[in-house]
Amino acid sequence: MSQLVWLRKGTVTSAKGFLANGLHAGIKPGREKDMALVVSVKPAEAAGAFTTNQVKAGPVRVTQAHLRNGAVRAVILNSGNANACTGVRGIADAKRMTVETAKVLKCRPHEVLVCSTGRIGVPLPIRKVLRGIRSIAGRVKPNGGPGAARAIMTSDTKRKEAAVRLTIAGRRLTIGAMAKGAGMIHPNMATLLCVVATDAAVDQRTLVRLTADAVENSFNRISVDGDMSTNDTVLVLANGAAGNTPLRSYDQDLGKFSNALKQLMLEMAKKIVEDGEGRTRVIELTVVGALTDRDAKLMAEAIARSALVKTSWAGGDPNWGRIMGAIGACGARMREELVDIHYDGVSAVRGGVAAATPPGRLKAAARRSRVSIQVSLNLGKGEYRMLTTDLSEKYVRINLGE
Amino acid sequence: MSQLVWLRKGTVTSAKGFLANGLHAGIKPGREKDMALVVSVKPAEAAGAFTTNQVKAGPVRVTQAHLRNGAVRAVILNSGNANACTGVRGIADAKRMTVETAKVLKCRPHEVLVCSTGRIGVPLPIRKVLRGIRSIAGRVKPNGGPGAARAIMTSDTKRKEAAVRLTIAGRRLTIGAMAKGAGMIHPNMATLLCVVATDAAVDQRTLVRLTADAVENSFNRISVDGDMSTNDTVLVLANGAAGNTPLRSYDQDLGKFSNALKQLMLEMAKKIVEDGEGRTRVIELTVVGALTDRDAKLMAEAIARSALVKTSWAGGDPNWGRIMGAIGACGARMREELVDIHYDGVSAVRGGVAAATPPGRLKAAARRSRVSIQVSLNLGKGEYRMLTTDLSEKYVRINLGE
Repeated sequence: MSQLVWLRKGTVTSAKGFLANGLHAGIKPGREKDMALVVSVKPAEAAGAFTTNQVKAGPVRVTQAHLRNGAVRAVILNSGNANACTGVRGIADAKRMTVETAKVLKCRPHEVLVCSTGRIGVPLPIRKVLRGIRSIAGRVKPNGGPGAARAIMTSDTKRKEAAVRLTIAGRRLTIGAMAKGAGMIHPNMATLLCVVATDAAVDQRTLVRLTADAVENSFNRISVDGDMSTNDTVLVLANGAAGNTPLRSYDQDLGKFSNALKQLMLEMAKKIVEDGEGRTRVIELTVVGALTDRDAKLMAEAIARSALVKTSWAGGDPNWGRIMGAIGACGARMREELVDIHYDGVSAVRGGVAAATPPGRLKAAARRSRVSIQVSLNLGKGEYRMLTTDLSEKYVRINLGE
Repeated sequence: MSQLVWLRKGTVTSAKGFLANGLHAGIKPGREKDMALVVSVKPAEAAGAFTTNQVKAGPVRVTQAHLRNGAVRAVILNSGNANACTGVRGIADAKRMTVETAKVLKCRPHEVLVCSTGRIGVPLPIRKVLRGIRSIAGRVKPNGGPGAARAIMTSDTKRKEAAVRLTIAGRRLTIGAMAKGAGMIHPNMATLLCVVATDAAVDQRTLVRLTADAVENSFNRISVDGDMSTNDTVLVLANGAAGNTPLRSYDQDLGKFSNALKQLMLEMAKKIVEDGEGRTRVIELTVVGALTDRDAKLMAEAIARSALVKTSWAGGDPNWGRIMGAIGACGARMREELVDIHYDGVSAVRGGVAAATPPGRLKAAARRSRVSIQVSLNLGKGEYRMLTTDLSEKYVRINLGE
């Protein structure tokens, strides 16, 4: 693929024409930042991907509606409260956040998108939130990305930001991003959030397609605990400040841009897995040779969700019997006697039974901090890859609650 | 329903005409019992229910085949080795177990059923096993149930046995059972096994139907870790030693017998959940008001499988937001704004939002060692009940492996 440059301190404000910042509005206790604003200096085309959970937070419903109205100017975000399972009031509060942001930015409410993350089931402290909006609006700045990225953290242990640069037809295009998520969760906490901001001009329908494709190949391929949040939101804003001719579906250079967007989202997804709650290992899981891609996906997700498999990963135990059990029970088609399994290239299973590998070699492979596990069905050409984590005692401790 | 008497020291040999015992054959290290035999003094009608995992252990395949040949005389079982993922050799070894048992009991191999539980992926030490069969055959006795129940334990901390007695048309009928299972698992261990032995005479087709029905309402309604074993087997033997007229599908007293069988299996299922690996709480989960029973089942299983929900149970935290998240993501139909959730009768969620219950009352309910959680969808008449456990640090420790 084409030349892709990763910026050294890449963040959501790396692209031209984006301002951002974060502040403490008083939603979280103490002095932790809990509110972020990302502003585009000119109207930006926008696209989004959202949780498919039927239980959707108020901000998700409002953002989905606003995206149907065309170009946007800003994204207002808060942590410390997910505004989920808060009923009609939650939707009204999310709307008020967009109205207040629009007022101070002098744009229309439907040009503002909104995201929340944090505790579920508790109404937003809306006065504090509105006061926070009024004070953050005057503080957004071109290098404010890190402050914004800090303000959306919940159980995350570090900020998640990155940016890439590429050149198309002599124009330098930049794509920056910030994200949060460390599993889906913390006690009562939920969510993966990601805001991508690019100065490329991209035709709106093309942007929608590229976003869906990039999300499918990044965020939809990671799993920490198999649970799906009520607030998951990925937003892509393209403001055209780079001055390129708008990218369209038939552009021969579209692939370059599409690849850059995918790589960036994949990088953000990796940061989330690496910061996974209580994780001691990152597992690169590959299923090949399934009858269909769908079967391969079913199997990969079944493995990544199995408590038994994940605890064996925590123990560094190459317990392939549990993987066999998980794929056999998931509904995808298989033939036990054809299955091969490798841990970091070391054969564990051959033809459905234990391979003749010295146990010591296999154990050494399973004990690395990053393990690639490949399951080969030897039935067809279906493939699926994903990144996941182990299930440790620490994960349980983090999630016990009060 | 009719008079159902629970026997005080009920076991798999409580019914007339059954002998059993257990011994140490050398499959497990030390001197722990690892082999059991249950014999019926006369040919018994038999029915079975098996794992639906596509990865099936050799003994499961052999037992399924033998059941198609009519009446049986014995069940030979071993612990310490699941004889699963052992390929063609595994099937041959399971067959040899039935052949050897038939030889010493002087019956046909297809009159012997076989079950294994323990480590996956390691071939059976078949010589030790065959020697064990030769020595156990002479030791079976009418009060040998407890020895047999002891010999099939793996990660279980206690024997699981029970028996009930009922009277039909003046005849006293007894149904006894033994089981093992403590989750699905222990490092590399698998399986739920249950052998039910009754002296009632039951028509074979009727027995098959009653068994399926009883399993559906007992073992299929418990979940410890959501994983499904390669060896799960429930067998019901009815030898007619009580001398009753064989029960048939049109018998007006069939309901009494069917209920007794269900209650007995439910009791065994409860014993398994109560001995669940690392459990600190037992959760009685009820989903009501779903559009269909199938939707209710999907939701109950999604809740019982969610790592996030289960860790909150371990913490005694009434974190209903996680339950909302789990049911919203499982694919069953719901309307967020209609959902009610109760912990031991205390309202946590009303109309999709937090109920006005004092937090202290809710927390007290969630901290009991046995908690009933009811999720009401308020959409239709679909219902499902199941028993499950929490996910504790201890569960992870038990399953880390070596």
